[in-house]
Amino acid sequence: MDLSQLLASSPNHHLLLHFSPTNKSLFNFHKPLPLFTNFNPQRRSSITNYHPIKSQTLNHNNTPLDHDDGFILEDVPHLTHFLPDLPTYPNPLKYSQAYAIVKNTFVSPEDVLAQQVVVQKGSPRGVHFRRAGPRENVYFKSEEVRACIVTCGGLCPGINTVIREIVCGLNYMYGVNTVLGIEGGYRGFYARNTMELNPKVVNDIHKRGGTILQTSRGGHDTNKIVDNIQDRGINQVYIIGGDGTQKGAAAIYKEVEKRRFPVAVAGIPKTIDNDIAVIDKSFGFDTAVEEAQRAINAAHVEVESVENGVGIVKLMGRYSGFIAMFATLASRDVDCCLIPESPFYLEGQGGLFEFVQQRLKENGHVVIVLAEGAGQEYVLESVNAAEEKDASGNKLLLDVGPWLTQKIKDHFTTVKKMAINMKYIDPTYMIRAVPSNAYDNIYCTLLAQSAVHGAMAGYTGFTVGPVNSRHAYIPIGRVTEATNVVKLTDRMWARLLASTNQPTFLDKHE
Amino acid sequence: MDLSQLLASSPNHHLLLHFSPTNKSLFNFHKPLPLFTNFNPQRRSSITNYHPIKSQTLNHNNTPLDHDDGFILEDVPHLTHFLPDLPTYPNPLKYSQAYAIVKNTFVSPEDVLAQQVVVQKGSPRGVHFRRAGPRENVYFKSEEVRACIVTCGGLCPGINTVIREIVCGLNYMYGVNTVLGIEGGYRGFYARNTMELNPKVVNDIHKRGGTILQTSRGGHDTNKIVDNIQDRGINQVYIIGGDGTQKGAAAIYKEVEKRRFPVAVAGIPKTIDNDIAVIDKSFGFDTAVEEAQRAINAAHVEVESVENGVGIVKLMGRYSGFIAMFATLASRDVDCCLIPESPFYLEGQGGLFEFVQQRLKENGHVVIVLAEGAGQEYVLESVNAAEEKDASGNKLLLDVGPWLTQKIKDHFTTVKKMAINMKYIDPTYMIRAVPSNAYDNIYCTLLAQSAVHGAMAGYTGFTVGPVNSRHAYIPIGRVTEATNVVKLTDRMWARLLASTNQPTFLDKHE
Amino acid sequence: MDLSQLLASSPNHHLLLHFSPTNKSLFNFHKPLPLFTNFNPQRRSSITNYHPIKSQTLNHNNTPLDHDDGFILEDVPHLTHFLPDLPTYPNPLKYSQAYAIVKNTFVSPEDVLAQQVVVQKGSPRGVHFRRAGPRENVYFKSEEVRACIVTCGGLCPGINTVIREIVCGLNYMYGVNTVLGIEGGYRGFYARNTMELNPKVVNDIHKRGGTILQTSRGGHDTNKIVDNIQDRGINQVYIIGGDGTQKGAAAIYKEVEKRRFPVAVAGIPKTIDNDIAVIDKSFGFDTAVEEAQRAINAAHVEVESVENGVGIVKLMGRYSGFIAMFATLASRDVDCCLIPESPFYLEGQGGLFEFVQQRLKENGHVVIVLAEGAGQEYVLESVNAAEEKDASGNKLLLDVGPWLTQKIKDHFTTVKKMAINMKYIDPTYMIRAVPSNAYDNIYCTLLAQSAVHGAMAGYTGFTVGPVNSRHAYIPIGRVTEATNVVKLTDRMWARLLASTNQPTFLDKHE
Amino acid sequence: MDLSQLLASSPNHHLLLHFSPTNKSLFNFHKPLPLFTNFNPQRRSSITNYHPIKSQTLNHNNTPLDHDDGFILEDVPHLTHFLPDLPTYPNPLKYSQAYAIVKNTFVSPEDVLAQQVVVQKGSPRGVHFRRAGPRENVYFKSEEVRACIVTCGGLCPGINTVIREIVCGLNYMYGVNTVLGIEGGYRGFYARNTMELNPKVVNDIHKRGGTILQTSRGGHDTNKIVDNIQDRGINQVYIIGGDGTQKGAAAIYKEVEKRRFPVAVAGIPKTIDNDIAVIDKSFGFDTAVEEAQRAINAAHVEVESVENGVGIVKLMGRYSGFIAMFATLASRDVDCCLIPESPFYLEGQGGLFEFVQQRLKENGHVVIVLAEGAGQEYVLESVNAAEEKDASGNKLLLDVGPWLTQKIKDHFTTVKKMAINMKYIDPTYMIRAVPSNAYDNIYCTLLAQSAVHGAMAGYTGFTVGPVNSRHAYIPIGRVTEATNVVKLTDRMWARLLASTNQPTFLDKHE
Repeated sequence: MDLSQLLASSPNHHLLLHFSPTNKSLFNFHKPLPLFTNFNPQRRSSITNYHPIKSQTLNHNNTPLDHDDGFILEDVPHLTHFLPDLPTYPNPLKYSQAYAIVKNTFVSPEDVLAQQVVVQKGSPRGVHFRRAGPRENVYFKSEEVRACIVTCGGLCPGINTVIREIVCGLNYMYGVNTVLGIEGGYRGFYARNTMELNPKVVNDIHKRGGTILQTSRGGHDTNKIVDNIQDRGINQVYIIGGDGTQKGAAAIYKEVEKRRFPVAVAGIPKTIDNDIAVIDKSFGFDTAVEEAQRAINAAHVEVESVENGVGIVKLMGRYSGFIAMFATLASRDVDCCLIPESPFYLEGQGGLFEFVQQRLKENGHVVIVLAEGAGQEYVLESVNAAEEKDASGNKLLLDVGPWLTQKIKDHFTTVKKMAINMKYIDPTYMIRAVPSNAYDNIYCTLLAQSAVHGAMAGYTGFTVGPVNSRHAYIPIGRVTEATNVVKLTDRMWARLLASTNQPTFLDKHE
Repeated sequence: MDLSQLLASSPNHHLLLHFSPTNKSLFNFHKPLPLFTNFNPQRRSSITNYHPIKSQTLNHNNTPLDHDDGFILEDVPHLTHFLPDLPTYPNPLKYSQAYAIVKNTFVSPEDVLAQQVVVQKGSPRGVHFRRAGPRENVYFKSEEVRACIVTCGGLCPGINTVIREIVCGLNYMYGVNTVLGIEGGYRGFYARNTMELNPKVVNDIHKRGGTILQTSRGGHDTNKIVDNIQDRGINQVYIIGGDGTQKGAAAIYKEVEKRRFPVAVAGIPKTIDNDIAVIDKSFGFDTAVEEAQRAINAAHVEVESVENGVGIVKLMGRYSGFIAMFATLASRDVDCCLIPESPFYLEGQGGLFEFVQQRLKENGHVVIVLAEGAGQEYVLESVNAAEEKDASGNKLLLDVGPWLTQKIKDHFTTVKKMAINMKYIDPTYMIRAVPSNAYDNIYCTLLAQSAVHGAMAGYTGFTVGPVNSRHAYIPIGRVTEATNVVKLTDRMWARLLASTNQPTFLDKHE
Repeated sequence: MDLSQLLASSPNHHLLLHFSPTNKSLFNFHKPLPLFTNFNPQRRSSITNYHPIKSQTLNHNNTPLDHDDGFILEDVPHLTHFLPDLPTYPNPLKYSQAYAIVKNTFVSPEDVLAQQVVVQKGSPRGVHFRRAGPRENVYFKSEEVRACIVTCGGLCPGINTVIREIVCGLNYMYGVNTVLGIEGGYRGFYARNTMELNPKVVNDIHKRGGTILQTSRGGHDTNKIVDNIQDRGINQVYIIGGDGTQKGAAAIYKEVEKRRFPVAVAGIPKTIDNDIAVIDKSFGFDTAVEEAQRAINAAHVEVESVENGVGIVKLMGRYSGFIAMFATLASRDVDCCLIPESPFYLEGQGGLFEFVQQRLKENGHVVIVLAEGAGQEYVLESVNAAEEKDASGNKLLLDVGPWLTQKIKDHFTTVKKMAINMKYIDPTYMIRAVPSNAYDNIYCTLLAQSAVHGAMAGYTGFTVGPVNSRHAYIPIGRVTEATNVVKLTDRMWARLLASTNQPTFLDKHE
Repeated sequence: MDLSQLLASSPNHHLLLHFSPTNKSLFNFHKPLPLFTNFNPQRRSSITNYHPIKSQTLNHNNTPLDHDDGFILEDVPHLTHFLPDLPTYPNPLKYSQAYAIVKNTFVSPEDVLAQQVVVQKGSPRGVHFRRAGPRENVYFKSEEVRACIVTCGGLCPGINTVIREIVCGLNYMYGVNTVLGIEGGYRGFYARNTMELNPKVVNDIHKRGGTILQTSRGGHDTNKIVDNIQDRGINQVYIIGGDGTQKGAAAIYKEVEKRRFPVAVAGIPKTIDNDIAVIDKSFGFDTAVEEAQRAINAAHVEVESVENGVGIVKLMGRYSGFIAMFATLASRDVDCCLIPESPFYLEGQGGLFEFVQQRLKENGHVVIVLAEGAGQEYVLESVNAAEEKDASGNKLLLDVGPWLTQKIKDHFTTVKKMAINMKYIDPTYMIRAVPSNAYDNIYCTLLAQSAVHGAMAGYTGFTVGPVNSRHAYIPIGRVTEATNVVKLTDRMWARLLASTNQPTFLDKHE
């Protein structure tokens, strides 16, 4: 057995492979490969340019070693890693007419890798992930699958579509009939009843916002959850949620592995802020940018209709300003976009007050889009100041929207003796709660189907998502380790600056 | 000359007429009538059942006398009242093919009256207004008309449609080419330049929210405004605005009359709250109710997706809860609607807290729609309390939305030791700033055309609006004197109570 | 017993009353009244100015006699008419807190009448209907009610809201738990199973277009239906549908009466075209006008973006052009509106071709809104011509939209040798299938609640709808006998002509 | 001078470069490079692995040679190719604060290439294009730029955004004040007046559908157009249009080159069908897929509400079914999607009739989405058949929508004796005419800015578009030579088949 065989089918656990591009054998085999469980670790050394790293020693935050001109595969765990004798079955899709004509039905060796562009010294070809998609063999009999779905954290357009497509994907593609909905987030595993999910129940849910399973924050008690998984006989767990939720998913996976349960744990990362570094875009983001246009339009109409109108629209984005940036670029009505990544200052030359005043003079109105995480340092400062006097008002002041509104108002009325019309809009809930648009519906479908294919194929402890336009299976640690932020030295921010012509806030002269 | 002649054509000033229904002569004449200026007041007494009241002594707040089974006409002023020699011309619509086929083109004596249903003792047939529409004769030569339009007060869907239709109505129907836009509200008369309005400029503005003329509050300096009207040679003034604005319009009309200028002053009442008692509905109201559905839907989705979700949507309605009431009835997703007209209390039996708790128990979530004027007494109280401690927080607390949100949160977390998820949405600007919907577009068109017909026909000091489904000319005082409020003893509120099954807050047991 | 007593409570069958307005006693009694079944016909003559007409001789198409200055009540049947011993119960709403505070909860004698404005010689005060609303007594025990709902005919926005509100109204207001949905129209009574309807099932259906009960045309077999009503033990039948459907409802009512079943039959008239003469507006109409704007906007954008663009939008309206007229007035982008009521011609002076050519010359584009019933005489002609040659194309040609498109295209390319860009849009299904807007949601709620109150109060063979802004119980015959059409001599058509400045097509010179 | 220098800055004309990846020098130089005009062709041979092909002999359809493991750069022409003495100026963006902070402001040698993934034997690293973006130097003085914009072909959401952003990009980024709008497509150059475009004029146009410049098909007379470009002193030509339009752009570029005019010709490819092979996605496509949901929803509501409802929605897609495929995937309500790439048949086993019948039996309704180019072979057949009998009906029959509707209807009513309810919707104009959504607004902005940067930098005869997520300058021939079609052996089609479970129509047994 050679490397290419290994790579193509092996359900390796956190295996880091490092190839030289000269290894041509990678791309020229065609037949089913022996399973990883047959793989003899002693033979590894015979593989040219293969630098195995003991999977056991790898944690999710490991920065993989990189070599001169090879590339790195960050693989996801597989059930056979801790259950080497797990039986396997042919994928039922083999017998489906739909897939029969599709050349690439089963992820073939040629396209096993989804590349991630990472500028890493000495590793120009980047990190790779295992490509998502159906596999020739599955590790579950359809009639024995007992899947469950849980949703955690804040709302995001598209959650219901993901739920729908996991249910329909399991049913239509794999003939699975038993899917349970865990209600109310993680604590629903042990604190509430489940609801039965089937194609009929979920048929129209993608046209509604929110999540039919309800969601909550916290409530993650790994042991109680895994006990419950065992008690209910669940063997596939689909977890839709953000950073904290995925860390919980990783813990569940670890515990499941520890107990050696044949349970596949799949995460579908959810963050309306698009702040996951490894994947191209998070679901719901496109819908959020679209829906944000309403609020920006409203602010624009309001301030255009008065003298010295200053409109402020606060959008989501606690640590990264993608929604604010894209909503600004899409609207063409925004004068200034403030995001957490680009610190700003109010007073003095090059400050926000000066800019607002100048725009008021030129156009008679200003529209500012503000990510919720922008200017947190100022808000905290003002809270601390306030706390010394009066502790009761804190909650309101922690919000940067009203804070900035008040600051601008005070500056112009007090300092400049100039009447201005402030219009502050916080459309957060009105954005989060809409159903997903067509783009996100397709995207959520792909995520759900990838998760289903992965779990059926026996992968576990993985999340799904597109990496350089290709859907991949990604170790959970990867989606929780780093936050995607707007790079101020990148083209998109330059385009925004060119389009708004706002100050860069780079040099403060006070 | 008999009464019917008088009524049909007389451009009387605040004339109150009182008829017995037995006077049949009212409805059977067909030819053009002598102008009011030819009317001999001495002959009035010969008219059966006619109880003239000296128009000069009538102010806008006069409660007209009522008689046993007659009715009352509250008429609007006419230019000829103070300019008896003003020449008159045939209405150019006479020569338009469009109007030629329309039997009722010119408001005929038979339909001169638009009835207002008022339950007044002894006056079962109610108060009547002069019906709006084109008249056989006009008091302006088209080429000599210099009209102006001004918009004041807050935004409301449809302002641009009214502007467009005044401009197009004057141009298409009467061949008027000179229409000036006064920018920025009343102070625009003396503080800013005007913009030229013509059908091309206004062609698409009804598809945009806001007002292309900008708006402002205050700035009403009657003398400076009338000076400016004189300086610019303006002879038709169209004033779009709310209560305060219409009072200003009345003042302008008085001053114009005092100076004996041949200037028609027409008001188009604007209030998104629908709180003008005399007219059926105000423009923009229907659009606002429609747009409010988005916010209610968002709140509903948010609270359905969490445990113990409490959604609060604050809607417009400072003194009357029509938007809240209709938005609640339209949505079918609201558990409780709080309006200024129906005082509520929080604690104890039959209070809001109890109701919220009960709904949380039954359904797991609650949606409350709150008119901005509801519960002002509590907010003021809490502000006073706060003022004793710290004066800086007032502005935030005056808003009933955050106040109620905080109160409910405190009650459940502190008193009930129960975790609840509060979701507060204030969609005010996002509602106000949308363009008017189809219904309001038609309605605004009718208002604008009525105003144009009225001004061309020499009426002045009037506003327009539908009274019992018929568009009428209404004395300005009528639209400013009384506020339309939701009647708690009326069917619509009963329907709402039946549909939400919310507490009536009638008897407080504490 | 006097007249007022009679009027206030009598559940009379097709009783025509004729009052003199001088009968003051009508408005001053306050206590529960004896039932009609106690009414002694011999005493009728003692009632001043009362001219009873034998109800038996009245059919639904009777034009009631009118007298000099009285008015006419067109009453609806009551179960006690053919079941004089039917027991009665106090209305459970009496004990509801919601209704307790509402002064007008129960339709009181003072407001028993909803007026219809009809210009009838000698009857200036018009025809009246019994006002809709809850009554003090009901003729059904809540726990014994077995209601059913059926929907027939074409789709219309709001059907699901009506269904929802009948179900919720019966349940919330009257405690009724048994409501059956008859699926697939009339034939569903005997050909299909029923579905159970309860507040939970119908909770969200008003947010969807169409009808959850499915609909069909025809299938009305009175005997089989009434047999089925009997077999299923149904005692309240709610029938939502158009003209033909309501005729069917009348037949069901007659058969039920014949068999002396204690079954209330209530019709809710449905016609997206707003072509029912007696009621103010039909449900779904407002939504349809709103949604039609999309198609008109699209046509306008298309033709504005090309040279000599001619856009044609076909809207609903087989016999009456209300949707076309209101959509045109709302849009402000339409050059010409063609409706069935106003015959047009293509060629020669004052014809459509001339007008199109002139607008193309002036503006470079034309938008025509076309009601589907407009120009049917031409289409039929051309079909006959076509039939002589080839019978296969008929179906396509019967549609006036493609016909007019082809005619204009041929005229300009062949006769005028002028290249034009035709853009034809038929948005019919895209309009019909949307959910109802806020306005129609409220309206549908009122219709449903009126129907429920009426059926519970023992009325039968009635339909519901607003007459002069007041919801009334109307004999079924009234809604099927006459078609509401656009009156060409009325203000609204004049406004349209003034706004489009289109030809009146009154005099054809060829 | 070495290769890397050449590549980095040379404004080469149709230069095909072929590199070995071992050439490391490509990525390590930092200083401004001599212009191509200084390049000595005699020195070319000294460059390792560089196989120049004479640019003169290259036409746009050339399939470039490929070598063992190098890659190919398909470059775009530059003005200096035929105007070697053209002066150059520093890019004004150098002095803009906005761009100052952006590391990658000017496309640097390291990122000069945008890769295209093409599976070409022996060329695994694919074809590359020059990356779009600002360059250090420009070939136009801002005050001397006279740009013009022309739009051709059918409507597509986003055209107005592209126009707006070319105007604003030229103005804000480069200080260009003279931009002319050519009205009515190519023939507008010589047949109509121009309109002046400036940021104020175009400020709101992105909120409207269509094109403010109007569009037309044909009218391309290269000589007259170039004469006109000369007469008007235009030196930058921006051409927005589809396949034919871009061929025209290429001809204009050739003629301009022939005449040696310093005129940059830039194409922005427009095709709502997304059928351009080389770029990732065409503008307006995302909006079209979104808007198509309305029609699919309407069809679904219609057929769900009747018995045996068959809904057919025809979407755009003459040669490729992308809109149909993505709209189907997004909707989740579609039973069958028919596209030009996947031939289908009606009768027999595995045919459409069988499938429709089966779905009617299972669900009671079917929704079919049909690309306009699907089944053209059948439609043409039936037209030919018809032509033998009657030539007049052709136009109607060429449309596959009505054809399929009729076929299904005939089959079920005649052959199966089964009543079905056909609902056919053609939303084409209603989709094309909407304004672009947020996604497309951003995308159109990027396209426009790329075109502006390219023209200012002296490139000509190029189009713009994203290639593997990177915006690139692409030779015009590339966008016109091949059509992007749905690959039936690809994942996306497999996903669709899996989601609809429709027949594959692969084996016909009749």
